[in-house]
Amino acid sequence: MKDKILKILRDSDDYVSGEKISDQLGISRAAVWKHIRSLRADGCEIISATNRGYLLKHADLITTEAISDGLNTEFIGRNIFYFAETDSTNNRAKAEHDAPDGSLFIAETQNGGKGRRGRAWTSPKGTGIFMSLLLKPDIPPEEISRITLIAGLAVCRAVGNGAMIKWPNDVVIGSKKICGILTELAAEDDMISYVVCGIGVNVNTEKFDDELAERATSLLIETGRKQKRAEIVRKILEEFEVLYKEFLQNRLDNILPEYEKRCVTVGREVSVVYRNKSVSGKAIGVTADGALIVDTPDDKITVNSGEVSVRGIYGYI
Amino acid sequence: MKDKILKILRDSDDYVSGEKISDQLGISRAAVWKHIRSLRADGCEIISATNRGYLLKHADLITTEAISDGLNTEFIGRNIFYFAETDSTNNRAKAEHDAPDGSLFIAETQNGGKGRRGRAWTSPKGTGIFMSLLLKPDIPPEEISRITLIAGLAVCRAVGNGAMIKWPNDVVIGSKKICGILTELAAEDDMISYVVCGIGVNVNTEKFDDELAERATSLLIETGRKQKRAEIVRKILEEFEVLYKEFLQNRLDNILPEYEKRCVTVGREVSVVYRNKSVSGKAIGVTADGALIVDTPDDKITVNSGEVSVRGIYGYI
Repeated sequence: MKDKILKILRDSDDYVSGEKISDQLGISRAAVWKHIRSLRADGCEIISATNRGYLLKHADLITTEAISDGLNTEFIGRNIFYFAETDSTNNRAKAEHDAPDGSLFIAETQNGGKGRRGRAWTSPKGTGIFMSLLLKPDIPPEEISRITLIAGLAVCRAVGNGAMIKWPNDVVIGSKKICGILTELAAEDDMISYVVCGIGVNVNTEKFDDELAERATSLLIETGRKQKRAEIVRKILEEFEVLYKEFLQNRLDNILPEYEKRCVTVGREVSVVYRNKSVSGKAIGVTADGALIVDTPDDKITVNSGEVSVRGIYGYI
Repeated sequence: MKDKILKILRDSDDYVSGEKISDQLGISRAAVWKHIRSLRADGCEIISATNRGYLLKHADLITTEAISDGLNTEFIGRNIFYFAETDSTNNRAKAEHDAPDGSLFIAETQNGGKGRRGRAWTSPKGTGIFMSLLLKPDIPPEEISRITLIAGLAVCRAVGNGAMIKWPNDVVIGSKKICGILTELAAEDDMISYVVCGIGVNVNTEKFDDELAERATSLLIETGRKQKRAEIVRKILEEFEVLYKEFLQNRLDNILPEYEKRCVTVGREVSVVYRNKSVSGKAIGVTADGALIVDTPDDKITVNSGEVSVRGIYGYI
């Protein structure tokens, strides 16, 4: 019924009276009002005016139907777990790890979202994408970091607007972060049981708190336009599937050239922790294994992981 | 109170009457009986005879007290979760992964014990050791298989009686399996969150079912003597701690010579799956990374993991 009301509002350029909706669908005015309230909770911006009725100003649903409608993938996101609120979608995916390969876990808001190394990740309701993919690749545990890389590339392709990857697991526009990725792994000996790839994207955030504003941005801030989150989710899922299949076939071989082009870290001065020491140098590329190559005054080193500061990004000067 | 009754029985070479116990401890005869029943459930073999009382024939407890008493470790097994029955100790450890590094999870029986690749692992009550260690090593995910190797070596040292390692994760006496190891891993990107190392040892099993009898043995069958499981658990914990600390310091460098000597696989004809093909050859050693080196008619190959059949072991002829 909610979907039918949404369709009526979508099909109209002007206000639709509650009476008209109630007549058309054969439900009470109170029921119409209840569904309108529910649509608003799902992320629809619906204006109501006395004697005029309801006007859909912006429908930004990320419900199962909103995402599935027009999704062009084979298995990524074909099975969707939607949460109005949850602790973190990564936790939900881990708890449901018997769900099919490619299952999507998505929430309007997370009350326990987290980033790398247990850092908190704020998840304001209705403006962001907080999603996790459950994956069951037949790869050894050491290749998990490549999943993060291809997820970053998928997000870049999906959000456009000059998005670049800050190696290994952030996506930036200009010098500010628009997306973070946290990949988790469960393995038995040498065999991956499952991987959970969590992706958080700032979409329609209007403003960040002072401290965060220096480091974070959103698609709304960058483009000046409200975005439809379901569309972006679909694009991420579609781009991810293409890259993931390619990865399972040929690892990073064919992906690397685009990755390096999209990697804001490459070509810049960086500061990395290497063998427990802070080392500075110029990032000059990424290896076939996804490691960062840094040209330091002493030597060329490859960094597999960890904290990297990039000059000019997030206020590192 | 149970412990006090156990002490009275332990200190006596002959039957002790229920009356004497009840007088000595100031509890009712019914209470004595209740505790005796509970001690039996914990694995004590207590005979009772009319007009004579109770005789402790064999005390084989693996309760927290039984294991802690005389345990000489710094952090391995200092924190113990004991279960009369549970699904699997690996599952318990994963569920309690915020517990301290080195925590031990041990059960009298498991109703959902499992081996590699989801195979069932039978856990007969009161005769085996079903234990898992929760570990939080600061190592990359790809080193997880080394934990299995050092656990195997710890078990070999602890059980003695010519126990050898069948690479990578079984311990055998002669041609039959006495122990299986299943190591599981949770990681965030390049950082291990925690490792659960599950160890199952056949200790006082008197007889295996026909099918299993060809492949499995127990310490009782091999030595003709009932063993005290708590003693073996303590030895495993102590040997594991020594090897684990050495591993965290120097990886396998100093462990490898003993490992190769104790590895029944090395020097034998083996059949392995390599690049999706079954390949036969002679196992000639183990690399510093813990991989098996196999000399095949075509080439020397190193096998990181997976299924290995060893001629002469478990009926592979």
